[in-house]
Amino acid sequence: MRGTRLDTDRIRAARRLIDPVFLDTPLYRCEALEPELGCAVSVKLETANPVRSFKARGTEIAATRLADGGDRAVVCASAGNLGQALAWSGRNRGLDVTVVASRFATPAKLDRIRALGAALELVDGDHESARERAADRARRDGIRLLEDSLDIETCEGAATIGLELTAATPRFDTVLLALGGGALATGVGHVLKDLAPGIEVICVQPSGAPALTLSWRERRVVTTDSADTIADGVAGRFPIPAVLDDLLVVADDAVLVREESIVAGMRLLLDHAGLVVEPSAALGVAAVLEDRDRFAGRHVVTVVCGGNVDAAAYRRWIGPAATDPS
Amino acid sequence: MRGTRLDTDRIRAARRLIDPVFLDTPLYRCEALEPELGCAVSVKLETANPVRSFKARGTEIAATRLADGGDRAVVCASAGNLGQALAWSGRNRGLDVTVVASRFATPAKLDRIRALGAALELVDGDHESARERAADRARRDGIRLLEDSLDIETCEGAATIGLELTAATPRFDTVLLALGGGALATGVGHVLKDLAPGIEVICVQPSGAPALTLSWRERRVVTTDSADTIADGVAGRFPIPAVLDDLLVVADDAVLVREESIVAGMRLLLDHAGLVVEPSAALGVAAVLEDRDRFAGRHVVTVVCGGNVDAAAYRRWIGPAATDPS
Repeated sequence: MRGTRLDTDRIRAARRLIDPVFLDTPLYRCEALEPELGCAVSVKLETANPVRSFKARGTEIAATRLADGGDRAVVCASAGNLGQALAWSGRNRGLDVTVVASRFATPAKLDRIRALGAALELVDGDHESARERAADRARRDGIRLLEDSLDIETCEGAATIGLELTAATPRFDTVLLALGGGALATGVGHVLKDLAPGIEVICVQPSGAPALTLSWRERRVVTTDSADTIADGVAGRFPIPAVLDDLLVVADDAVLVREESIVAGMRLLLDHAGLVVEPSAALGVAAVLEDRDRFAGRHVVTVVCGGNVDAAAYRRWIGPAATDPS
Repeated sequence: MRGTRLDTDRIRAARRLIDPVFLDTPLYRCEALEPELGCAVSVKLETANPVRSFKARGTEIAATRLADGGDRAVVCASAGNLGQALAWSGRNRGLDVTVVASRFATPAKLDRIRALGAALELVDGDHESARERAADRARRDGIRLLEDSLDIETCEGAATIGLELTAATPRFDTVLLALGGGALATGVGHVLKDLAPGIEVICVQPSGAPALTLSWRERRVVTTDSADTIADGVAGRFPIPAVLDDLLVVADDAVLVREESIVAGMRLLLDHAGLVVEPSAALGVAAVLEDRDRFAGRHVVTVVCGGNVDAAAYRRWIGPAATDPS
């Protein structure tokens, strides 16, 4: 394949920097989902760890390198999961972690960032405002900015999921990846295209936050004026050019899904798989629900990338049981 | 320690018969639970696999030995999880599996048993009636009866959780185990007492189904006339003498918890850990909730042993969010 910013041997080396509690996550066939989805479905579960998302794979690498390099502090912008993961990884290595987030971010995520001892700075505006402020903070304080999807550690961390997927038997036909900033898709996609090029890599983004998907389709950066989706973890508007370049190499398709499909996906994963997932982690199932014919007869893996939800919002999304007699 | 029916080297050998999808399950500290529980809490998660409970560890061993020995068929009584696991393990090995269950068993569990291709026979009465019928079927048809907690494979399978716990660092102070027929408690307890005797082993049973706990306390088999609990997976009434003998060796304590504590435990695990658990899997958290002083300052592991719930019943148990503004 054409080159990306990633290198599979470097990913293998980076994997050794990650606390094993985040590695070798469950990967299993989930037959109870299959009647509803019309295809074979396996789940790669990234929620059963101390920060309930895959993001710590990347922050473990980043925090190790920072600490080894003598850094004492780091700042990142986050919708919540990266910040929580960096707070966890930084705490274990004596790093001062600052997280900048939108004040409209999911409260449960912000609570966990605080509980893990990070300094939390809230900004008006959306995630893009938080990115600007974090960059300002890094310049002003002379500390390292960890930028999701741009900084190679965040992509290498995600890429270790790809190593685990390619080690699995049986092989899969298709891997469905949530698309936000692009770290997950480019990281996992790189490894799949390098080691198992026959596996289809499909990125899934909400119709309400389509910037990187539109960019992939037009092969140039397309920004949007707003983002409107419950999938807070993938609600960016300004794609990073270098990430788009990689995505153009590794993605076979990028699809957009409706909000109601995301909610339906969350309900399915709860009722048939017993999994609590945040909206971003239901994007893969949503993509199958919107296009069952495309996936019929195939074996798809969906990476369940995060499970940080607010209790009240989650109950509203899942609503009453489909078969509730009451 | 005094002997049990189990042997740690035999457990290590048996572990090799288990499909890896059921092994090396997530074990992680869950700090978000800790403010509510007042102690350090780690979760050993046995729900992220194709049958959503730990029971397949045992049925994998049993089904391998049956198939290797030339058996073609097997029958078990089950509240649902053992039957589902045996159906999964038997299907992969060409065994005809019959599961006998109470017609009042959790419908979601019965549906999965059918979906996995097992023959399902329903009996009036409770789980003890199913045990009788299964034994009759085995005698009549001349096929093997797999009896939970009595048959050593079911205990050896559970015991492999103990191997994984003792391999973990840091060590824990206390392991909380759901107590039903006794396979989980005697299996895990045997390994802990053999390899890490300083770890306290506490069994937890619902007050509404206390037979084995009462037996442990009185050091003789005590039966009950009825069992009344939402924790369907542990609702036996007739303890098995050989299992009680082992439990007397390995358990440091056996405690009973109220139904409302089980529900509170399920809610906590959902809202603070993002875990969907069946009532039996919330017994450990329920025990801490009922006696926070006992566990203060300690590091407890709770084995989340199963997550098979009915969608409608689960929503009733979890109710509205504690902080729901609506």
